[in-house]
Amino acid sequence: MYRSKNCFFKYLNRKANWNRILILERPMSIAIISPGRDVSSWVKAFKKADPDIDIQVFPEIRDKESVELAILWQHPKGILKEFPNLKIICSMGAGVDHILSDSEIPLDIPITRIIDLGLTVPMTNYVVMATLNYQRQLYRYQANQKKKVWDMSNPELETKVGVMGVGALGNDVIEKLKILGFSVFGYGNNPKEETAYPYFHGHELPQFLKKVNLIICMLPLTPSTENILNMDFFRQCNKGTYIINVARGNHLVEDDLLAAINEDIISGAFLDVFRKEPLPQDHPFWDSDKITITPHIASVTNPNSAIPQIIENYKRLKTKKPFMNQINPILGY
Amino acid sequence: MYRSKNCFFKYLNRKANWNRILILERPMSIAIISPGRDVSSWVKAFKKADPDIDIQVFPEIRDKESVELAILWQHPKGILKEFPNLKIICSMGAGVDHILSDSEIPLDIPITRIIDLGLTVPMTNYVVMATLNYQRQLYRYQANQKKKVWDMSNPELETKVGVMGVGALGNDVIEKLKILGFSVFGYGNNPKEETAYPYFHGHELPQFLKKVNLIICMLPLTPSTENILNMDFFRQCNKGTYIINVARGNHLVEDDLLAAINEDIISGAFLDVFRKEPLPQDHPFWDSDKITITPHIASVTNPNSAIPQIIENYKRLKTKKPFMNQINPILGY
Repeated sequence: MYRSKNCFFKYLNRKANWNRILILERPMSIAIISPGRDVSSWVKAFKKADPDIDIQVFPEIRDKESVELAILWQHPKGILKEFPNLKIICSMGAGVDHILSDSEIPLDIPITRIIDLGLTVPMTNYVVMATLNYQRQLYRYQANQKKKVWDMSNPELETKVGVMGVGALGNDVIEKLKILGFSVFGYGNNPKEETAYPYFHGHELPQFLKKVNLIICMLPLTPSTENILNMDFFRQCNKGTYIINVARGNHLVEDDLLAAINEDIISGAFLDVFRKEPLPQDHPFWDSDKITITPHIASVTNPNSAIPQIIENYKRLKTKKPFMNQINPILGY
Repeated sequence: MYRSKNCFFKYLNRKANWNRILILERPMSIAIISPGRDVSSWVKAFKKADPDIDIQVFPEIRDKESVELAILWQHPKGILKEFPNLKIICSMGAGVDHILSDSEIPLDIPITRIIDLGLTVPMTNYVVMATLNYQRQLYRYQANQKKKVWDMSNPELETKVGVMGVGALGNDVIEKLKILGFSVFGYGNNPKEETAYPYFHGHELPQFLKKVNLIICMLPLTPSTENILNMDFFRQCNKGTYIINVARGNHLVEDDLLAAINEDIISGAFLDVFRKEPLPQDHPFWDSDKITITPHIASVTNPNSAIPQIIENYKRLKTKKPFMNQINPILGY
């Protein structure tokens, strides 16, 4: 029944734009706005959940007036003004900073995020991979392979790990790295009682940095953590410290990292997030042999666990019930 | 006292070779024969344990007659015939196949190996690294970085792990990979009661191979496992299966692996061990972009945990007590 209604509306839309006036129960459309990401698995999962759903994927938005639910990841700033009937904005992931940083977001529209315990497994595995590649010196062996050099010396670097940001994701990383035999230290904004690892907070950053030689940034992005990975920070690190950033590009002052690597203060970095994504073609990170980059894939929301949450909010939108996982735009989460 | 005696013997040795006849309590020498490996940490640890000990490192063996204890890793075959007073042979690692494969080893000399639980941590971390680099497609992202390509699609390969060889090392790998969220299957020679993972044995190899798409070889090297990773084996694997070998080079038919990769049966391999080590300069593995090689460093015996065992056997040799960790040359372990 829905399907035929849908065809009827498409017909009307093509003919004229007065269908809204004539018919009250018009079908709702979803827009997915996530430039540079293949969202075919999302479309498939939505169609599986509701074959009659109308999905428009940016940049091929056929009918902005019909869109009531927008699913966003790194959307072009200001674009939401063009959707006059938008009723809910859903982040494709756990973070909403990419939405709140758009000053033209209509403030009265509820914003939701994905809360998905399934996010911890890929995030932890990514971080463990980057940590082990440092400890077991994969890049050195790869370079030796190119040169046909067989060098068995020093097969392991002593690795003391510092995790900055000890929320659900950070704690999972700490737990798994400890199981793999690493010494792990935690750092966060607030004091904590009873942690299963040495924990530092607030002004204890210099003491924390002296304990470790591999730093994993998993902090939330807030005014107090923005640009935290800067030259002052690097100068307080042990010589040769390695940096892994899986949080947000704006935690890292990118020029300072390049300078610190040049000065041998920092030995290298494994980065999944950048100030501008996709990373611009002329960015020096692409060419650095001390920096490994991945295109923001450390922890990609699994459509199969995320979509039921968005489907549920789509149903609640239709039935006018309160939304799941709605964020407070003042707190930012 | 020992030190001056030692100098005296060196003097005698230089002058003539009749000291053995004249003096009964002559000092004992240790030979370390491990071509291509830096053994300075071993020498240092021995000197720390007993400053008077005389250590001769191959190829600079000053006095073969004085050597009573030989520590071996990949020694030149037949060389032990040149040591007339050898009383014990110690492997530098857990395996002794590199010793038993020398048909000129004097059969009446006891052989010992290192039993070191500290070996499991580096071995497991190496294998977990290789597994995660496959799952999270590190090599694809490295290639994309070179081409300045930002491609977020398919950030994770579905990875079902098969561990061949479920001894102490294999079981540790299985346990840790399960904690990281992997489905893991085990395969071994003998039936087992109650395993914490699906287990296949003996003739069930084809069924095991159908379950997995990443295979970790951790088998002992015996006549029945030699050359087990051959074209017949690869043809029974799921298309695109990835191979990790951390056991012995002789498990793998190297030409068959290259052919299976060429035919897209096998997607790639991570290899730490080779039929000939160091890997010869003209070997095609160096140049393969589907094969990552490391120079037999997955699990390098830690001198600090291994040396006490060899020192203990050195003391037992002097006091004529039974040796620790002596192997049965018929069983091969």
